[in-house]
Amino acid sequence: MRAFQLVGWQQSPELREVPVPEPGPGQVLVKVGGAGACHSDLHMMEALGPPPGFATELPFTLGHENAGWVERLGPGVTGFAPGDPVMVYGPWGCGMCANCREGRENYCQKVSGQGGGLGGGHDGGMAEYLLVPAARFLIPLGTLDPRQAAPLTDAGLTSYHAVKRSLHLLGPGSTAVVIGVGGLGQMAIQMVRALSAATTVVAVDTDAGKLETAKRLGADEALLSDEDAVTRIKDMTEQQGAQLVLDMVGIDPTLRMAAQVARVLGHLTIVGLGGGALPVNFSNPPHECSVASPYWGSLPELMEVITLAQQQKIKMFLEHFPLERANEAYQLLHDGKIQGRAVITPHP
Amino acid sequence: MRAFQLVGWQQSPELREVPVPEPGPGQVLVKVGGAGACHSDLHMMEALGPPPGFATELPFTLGHENAGWVERLGPGVTGFAPGDPVMVYGPWGCGMCANCREGRENYCQKVSGQGGGLGGGHDGGMAEYLLVPAARFLIPLGTLDPRQAAPLTDAGLTSYHAVKRSLHLLGPGSTAVVIGVGGLGQMAIQMVRALSAATTVVAVDTDAGKLETAKRLGADEALLSDEDAVTRIKDMTEQQGAQLVLDMVGIDPTLRMAAQVARVLGHLTIVGLGGGALPVNFSNPPHECSVASPYWGSLPELMEVITLAQQQKIKMFLEHFPLERANEAYQLLHDGKIQGRAVITPHP
Amino acid sequence: MRAFQLVGWQQSPELREVPVPEPGPGQVLVKVGGAGACHSDLHMMEALGPPPGFATELPFTLGHENAGWVERLGPGVTGFAPGDPVMVYGPWGCGMCANCREGRENYCQKVSGQGGGLGGGHDGGMAEYLLVPAARFLIPLGTLDPRQAAPLTDAGLTSYHAVKRSLHLLGPGSTAVVIGVGGLGQMAIQMVRALSAATTVVAVDTDAGKLETAKRLGADEALLSDEDAVTRIKDMTEQQGAQLVLDMVGIDPTLRMAAQVARVLGHLTIVGLGGGALPVNFSNPPHECSVASPYWGSLPELMEVITLAQQQKIKMFLEHFPLERANEAYQLLHDGKIQGRAVITPHP
Amino acid sequence: MRAFQLVGWQQSPELREVPVPEPGPGQVLVKVGGAGACHSDLHMMEALGPPPGFATELPFTLGHENAGWVERLGPGVTGFAPGDPVMVYGPWGCGMCANCREGRENYCQKVSGQGGGLGGGHDGGMAEYLLVPAARFLIPLGTLDPRQAAPLTDAGLTSYHAVKRSLHLLGPGSTAVVIGVGGLGQMAIQMVRALSAATTVVAVDTDAGKLETAKRLGADEALLSDEDAVTRIKDMTEQQGAQLVLDMVGIDPTLRMAAQVARVLGHLTIVGLGGGALPVNFSNPPHECSVASPYWGSLPELMEVITLAQQQKIKMFLEHFPLERANEAYQLLHDGKIQGRAVITPHP
Repeated sequence: MRAFQLVGWQQSPELREVPVPEPGPGQVLVKVGGAGACHSDLHMMEALGPPPGFATELPFTLGHENAGWVERLGPGVTGFAPGDPVMVYGPWGCGMCANCREGRENYCQKVSGQGGGLGGGHDGGMAEYLLVPAARFLIPLGTLDPRQAAPLTDAGLTSYHAVKRSLHLLGPGSTAVVIGVGGLGQMAIQMVRALSAATTVVAVDTDAGKLETAKRLGADEALLSDEDAVTRIKDMTEQQGAQLVLDMVGIDPTLRMAAQVARVLGHLTIVGLGGGALPVNFSNPPHECSVASPYWGSLPELMEVITLAQQQKIKMFLEHFPLERANEAYQLLHDGKIQGRAVITPHP
Repeated sequence: MRAFQLVGWQQSPELREVPVPEPGPGQVLVKVGGAGACHSDLHMMEALGPPPGFATELPFTLGHENAGWVERLGPGVTGFAPGDPVMVYGPWGCGMCANCREGRENYCQKVSGQGGGLGGGHDGGMAEYLLVPAARFLIPLGTLDPRQAAPLTDAGLTSYHAVKRSLHLLGPGSTAVVIGVGGLGQMAIQMVRALSAATTVVAVDTDAGKLETAKRLGADEALLSDEDAVTRIKDMTEQQGAQLVLDMVGIDPTLRMAAQVARVLGHLTIVGLGGGALPVNFSNPPHECSVASPYWGSLPELMEVITLAQQQKIKMFLEHFPLERANEAYQLLHDGKIQGRAVITPHP
Repeated sequence: MRAFQLVGWQQSPELREVPVPEPGPGQVLVKVGGAGACHSDLHMMEALGPPPGFATELPFTLGHENAGWVERLGPGVTGFAPGDPVMVYGPWGCGMCANCREGRENYCQKVSGQGGGLGGGHDGGMAEYLLVPAARFLIPLGTLDPRQAAPLTDAGLTSYHAVKRSLHLLGPGSTAVVIGVGGLGQMAIQMVRALSAATTVVAVDTDAGKLETAKRLGADEALLSDEDAVTRIKDMTEQQGAQLVLDMVGIDPTLRMAAQVARVLGHLTIVGLGGGALPVNFSNPPHECSVASPYWGSLPELMEVITLAQQQKIKMFLEHFPLERANEAYQLLHDGKIQGRAVITPHP
Repeated sequence: MRAFQLVGWQQSPELREVPVPEPGPGQVLVKVGGAGACHSDLHMMEALGPPPGFATELPFTLGHENAGWVERLGPGVTGFAPGDPVMVYGPWGCGMCANCREGRENYCQKVSGQGGGLGGGHDGGMAEYLLVPAARFLIPLGTLDPRQAAPLTDAGLTSYHAVKRSLHLLGPGSTAVVIGVGGLGQMAIQMVRALSAATTVVAVDTDAGKLETAKRLGADEALLSDEDAVTRIKDMTEQQGAQLVLDMVGIDPTLRMAAQVARVLGHLTIVGLGGGALPVNFSNPPHECSVASPYWGSLPELMEVITLAQQQKIKMFLEHFPLERANEAYQLLHDGKIQGRAVITPHP
């Protein structure tokens, strides 16, 4: 089968011919419908070598954001049948530590690092078939099309987790600020709207077009990212700031703004991998505002994301590319020319 | 191998010779160290037939409270080695529904009924070997001896779950009442002590000897179960009642007492299977006191129970019986002559 | 001034002339805009004497659901000015116990019983002026008209509290059932809609007209209260039942239905004062479904209810009556002829 | 009466003769038993002027950590009698905003800044009498002596709040690290012990004597603050880090250590005012570890602190000074020669 693989560090990936894997006991072979292209893949391609603590041997197939159809069940697997449309949960944990046993394999205590290696050491989904090491990583998609649904497993789940952990703050009269209206920011805006009683959802971006999108998706206010934005958010909130600030960018200027518009007892959540850092001390951000960087989300949360999508409460702007155009997709992503999400479709 | 089996309804179980099971893919064969004898088994033995909605065919091996050593791994199982001492989590769920994915297989949405059939339809642990259908039901015991630890998986876990869900109520100055100081009540007293800042732990029982035990295990007050008990608990709590009342008996008189000594915004938790019922309405128990009957506990909670036992914060009074004396153990249990817990030890 | 007072047990209240009270230190005199007539007043009128533990001397002015305008501030009161429209929080507590200090004066540990006596011992709001014993019981109404807003302080707040305590259960895909679509049920339906991601809100009533209203207010399903209702709710929820069941009626048949349609780990909340009781035991309602009867709500919650109303996310059907027609209003209420809520307006 | 007052910025405070205040409506005059001397007072004395946004006119009496006896009640005050021993809650809020109504006046939305001005603009407790503007700031001390209890209202409450908000993380097997074993650190160690099931409490300090104290107060491990400390904590926690890290110092090196020993999903709480800052980004501290700087605590929490002290679960090392030696007390504090807490006793 064809697989889009990283063959060398600081080198473009290549489409290569590899054997179709055979599922062992407990494993499942998935025929890939969609595999999302993610900014974090670009970081990996540009890296000088494997991330620290990451047992990665080249080559491997890219793609950690996958959905498809069950192709073949390994011995002992029950509960699925060939042809079932399924989502593939990405952060593969050990299944046995305390976090994994609560379905939070994104925080597995044994498998350190990011993604458990799916699409970053273990072969990912940018291939005709994907070998999934345990049936528990699959969730039925019901009526959703895997080619459409694939980005839910990372862009959707990461945003959902970041919003859900703060829902108790978003009662009547509350304000949520989403900084950065790319693929994840678009998700986050819709999710705050769908899940909470927040009165005001504020989107902030440097791109007027994205601010338009934000409004269409449910933002009450859409602000260009400048000094005025801080003043306006403070004014909207009677100088108290917002209960939840989601920084989907994560560079120094957005983090600084996030701290200025957050509220006492609020949440300032860093989702973006922009490489900035927020200096936290006694007086900044406001008292008892919790600053945290969550990573991906849990298996039960992914079930809820799928439910939201089935109810059409969240939508995503996608561009599909066949496997042979995967390099082009990453180039467009790199150039900032993807609106929403690029999805590779090995079986269009 | 020998197995202690229910062969007919309303009939004494029998020790029979059966084949040693062979573990299939993902399964594990456990050499049984201890299998606890539980009151719920007596209910089953005395039943006219299988519980409603319970696909139970006779004969089957009894025993849902088991620990032992890994004997043989089925294909695809990793993370365990022969000889490892392990606890067997009892309520076997589907592993795929929302509750199972959070480790709460006791509330599996697919497998209705009690215990997922382990020791009540599926063969349980009162045999030389126990076939466990998935490795996720095993938890390493570390330095604990399976013969000692077996009751932790039901008596321990059930009590732990009942206490843990109410810990937020047990701050400084709070009171917890445990009605019934049998095996589970003894666990509950120790757990409230170990886990919370509760100021006063009150034990209530009809048996003066058990009240002595309660005091040794950490109860501050031990009261005979009569009219005075209610008055005294009200007096201890400035007429407010207790934040947590655990009824480990569950007959009408204990439930009535429980409602009288519970507090506004408290928890009244029914653990005992005594067959009584508490009529709840607007004025009884006190306002917003939550009444609930939890069932068993979750996989992550069982890990915590094992940790507590490893730290020697909980102990249990056990009587061990070899497999051939299992019927005698149940007879003693039936006659109220077991202090603590009877454990069958197929490999003493 | 004129005041509508209870002058004898089991006797119709009378409109009487009484002196305008003078606010002492810390107190506030409120010019009454609206005073809601509540079923619980009917219970009191029909009682043989004061409720147990209720230091009630006759006569006293009825009305515990009040809003108006600040008329005069007692010495030492700051933060309000004459003419300010205000809501009057009803359950007057001691202000010093642990519950009062969290704003939950509905659960005051000193003032036992219902309503702290406002409109049930202490003079209530069915008069031209109402003496409020502490400024902390007042909440600014902003742009809301006290004649419209009065029912928010009981019908609104009671429903809001009952919904809010269960919001964590109402994620994507969840179901909430509201049994009884009177004034409080109508509130509850709108609040579940406004506050949560619940997928399905089911209204149940015996009156087809009320079911129509329920649908207009946001219910997805409106079911006549019969055997079929249970089956249909089980079918909607894949036989799991609803995460939240609010019984706004509280008679034996509705409580029985509530238990049948509730879910493992759900909430069954009894709001209605119908006088029934639900027998709770190990197997009914489902495992770890919490049964509780909350009473009224907290001060911070009332602020949130006002915010919801200001945002027009909740509306109520009101009928206004001048003070001299108060008896007629209660007669209509008694005869089931009030849709929504009857409000007495001493200053129309 | 005599009062110890700040009369000029960057100038030593002076003992001056001022009139005894007269309590107005709702106010209470307290005869001061003890007034704690706090590091934050030193910061204020050394400041060039009033903190930003702080309407402070000189002179004013120092002392925000006070307890005493009720001396005289203003008109309208009930619930207290002259002679009652009382704690004075320090952060005086407006009483009307959403936070104040939940008893969290430390986070008042109207009164910005620190302490609401008590002892920092408004006259504090380093005088014979203290005027308290509302009775709700008083909590009965029961059997506790105000001269001993005064530090509970800041050192006690601040530590308690910092521990309590993280209790859900401190289950069996968990680890809490307290960096800095001064007055607050000593409190925190005892509170983690008294309130939680944490298995391991680790104290870190640069002073061997303080580490001895830490062990006496319940710490399981006491580590000198060096590179080894990080390694040892990681080893104790199987390389996972601690669930809770309390930095009672707050300088760059302690914050850096805190981030290194914190755990995924843990809490890193900055209590010390050392002036450092922790740069937070996607990879440091560990994923979803929440970093926050709480400020003081709530009124209901102060009630719980008093309960803990009444039960002798927390103790504090105190040095008492009469009013005329207040300057000496601050000098010793400045020189690091106070073990525990210095308390000024105007009525020894």
